[in-house]
Amino acid sequence: MRRARIIRPMLVNEIGEVQLIEALERVVSGQAAAPAKEGRDDEVRLSIGDDASAWEPPATTQVLTTDSLVEGVHFRLDRTSWRDLGWKAMAVNLSDVAAMGCTPLHSLVTLGLRGDLPVDGLVEMYRGMAEAYSLYGGAIVGGDVVRSPTFFMSVTMNGAGLEGPDGPAGPAPLLKRSCARPGDVIGVTGSLGCSAGGLRTWSDSGSRPIAGRTVAHLRDAHNRPIPRVGQGQGLVRAGVRAAMDVSDGLVHDLGKLCAASGVGAVVHAEQAPADAFLREAYPEGWLDLALTGGEDYELLFTAPRRVMAAAAAALDVPVTVIGEIVEGEPGVTVLGADGRPRPMGAGGWEHFRQDAAG
Amino acid sequence: MRRARIIRPMLVNEIGEVQLIEALERVVSGQAAAPAKEGRDDEVRLSIGDDASAWEPPATTQVLTTDSLVEGVHFRLDRTSWRDLGWKAMAVNLSDVAAMGCTPLHSLVTLGLRGDLPVDGLVEMYRGMAEAYSLYGGAIVGGDVVRSPTFFMSVTMNGAGLEGPDGPAGPAPLLKRSCARPGDVIGVTGSLGCSAGGLRTWSDSGSRPIAGRTVAHLRDAHNRPIPRVGQGQGLVRAGVRAAMDVSDGLVHDLGKLCAASGVGAVVHAEQAPADAFLREAYPEGWLDLALTGGEDYELLFTAPRRVMAAAAAALDVPVTVIGEIVEGEPGVTVLGADGRPRPMGAGGWEHFRQDAAG
Repeated sequence: MRRARIIRPMLVNEIGEVQLIEALERVVSGQAAAPAKEGRDDEVRLSIGDDASAWEPPATTQVLTTDSLVEGVHFRLDRTSWRDLGWKAMAVNLSDVAAMGCTPLHSLVTLGLRGDLPVDGLVEMYRGMAEAYSLYGGAIVGGDVVRSPTFFMSVTMNGAGLEGPDGPAGPAPLLKRSCARPGDVIGVTGSLGCSAGGLRTWSDSGSRPIAGRTVAHLRDAHNRPIPRVGQGQGLVRAGVRAAMDVSDGLVHDLGKLCAASGVGAVVHAEQAPADAFLREAYPEGWLDLALTGGEDYELLFTAPRRVMAAAAAALDVPVTVIGEIVEGEPGVTVLGADGRPRPMGAGGWEHFRQDAAG
Repeated sequence: MRRARIIRPMLVNEIGEVQLIEALERVVSGQAAAPAKEGRDDEVRLSIGDDASAWEPPATTQVLTTDSLVEGVHFRLDRTSWRDLGWKAMAVNLSDVAAMGCTPLHSLVTLGLRGDLPVDGLVEMYRGMAEAYSLYGGAIVGGDVVRSPTFFMSVTMNGAGLEGPDGPAGPAPLLKRSCARPGDVIGVTGSLGCSAGGLRTWSDSGSRPIAGRTVAHLRDAHNRPIPRVGQGQGLVRAGVRAAMDVSDGLVHDLGKLCAASGVGAVVHAEQAPADAFLREAYPEGWLDLALTGGEDYELLFTAPRRVMAAAAAALDVPVTVIGEIVEGEPGVTVLGADGRPRPMGAGGWEHFRQDAAG
């Protein structure tokens, strides 16, 4: 009789910092340079292993953004695979660069690690990160590994704007929150609410059953959001100047865009794009999820009607017009199918008041 | 009789994310642009409040670095004031930029916050950050605030290299870990061991008393390290090309420099620079602290003798030559006063195995 061998995974506190970093470096080695799109001169001169990473920059406007995921707040390891976790950590930053209309270039990754995390899991997480930057840019060129009682990862990514009318050395046209103007219509890419719907499938254990593939679709939307990188650049080329990504929920984020631009917004609730899976899973609740659910990472943007039409025609994902920008106090009015203001809850996510991980 | 009014500080979980960010923004507002030294065109176009921060970059080589502080691992709130904590969070990143020989430009700050932290403390922490970037550059232009069971802050900073022989658009000369060559002598700025000495004053409660101002000096070295920003640039101008900052202890960090350069190093222990306060506080242990204590953030560099002399003459802080770079297997040999190898412990800090916060 053979005795069963129990293979215990190696944990972070069983290897040194240097060995751990080497294991993670192997995942990113050979891929340290961002895809050299459009002939950019952004060769990486130094990568992981010095005090900082260094490169020759493109001449145009640069952007820098950072976003973090904290265990128990933004994710739970029993709900998200290691690979998806890595994907998502990159995707949320790629989405910020996309929402500026820029090309992702490089990223730094800080890991705050509990000692009892499995090394194999972290390697798998890095593979998920590599999947994302291989597709969208923003290759990992450095970072920091620290010990922490709470597992977190913090990614910082830089990007470059597209060439503007003054050529490669002039300022780049960017997508900004502050550029919405009265008379603009409001558009959004893709569909909304699936990520929050995925989150709800874990907590709604008491309600009626939802088909397995529907659950899978919704959870996938939550765990592997698609950053709209090419679409952000497409918006810039089409002449759009006001945009942000939907991370905290449509109504909440549109409120931020209104505040930054000093304008109001009217949204027609029934025009909010929600896909068939979300409607099937939550026949009563889908519209609220589409209006206030967070973490869809679609692009929300405003433009004059003519520019909006050009943008919708140019993009490779559906664009839905959901309302208009109006003069007046910054704020969002949501109208129901009867044309009357729809009572909304606080809407969106207040990071300190609601647990995004359910 | 007057009744005592108990003023309870407002906590993070009592105000919304937006209000908290506004309170922190007020500290950095009006100071968002990095000091425009040497006529750099690095005007900040967008600051906190959009999906990313944006600016027109200098044409030369850029560097990007990140460093995090985690409560209970890198600091304790009963040992470090809020203002010093902010200073240190910036200083450790400024030190990384300095160790590349670059000028700090901008930084992003991610805060991972427990709900029970005082808002006033965080504002004070931002004031400490502002003190540091006002002196050394690297102004805060954006960031992210997330909830976290463990309090942490993660700073990412970018910088620009000095102008090289090919002019402002050519590659900049940088300080790299990989440029040490046999025949170089090894130099270090300032003095070593005080930060680790400060840490020891909290844990060595059983030993003989140390004078109050000595304790204050050592703890100050731990809580408010001075980033050697001007000195890093001075090294570049003097022709030095191999350097790093001492964050994990002299012997440990020199080992990393040797590994990156494929060389060996000989250090003469008794030449390690330690100040009078450290020698007075720890008459037996000062040399070990100077050789292996971490977080001094001095610059460790190597250069041919002639270049070293020029660098020492040009810098406004003492430079001490402590040894030589030699051919052979990467590694550090520490010689005692008798010229024989000095037995060293593992030396330096292994982040996953030793608690830097004592």
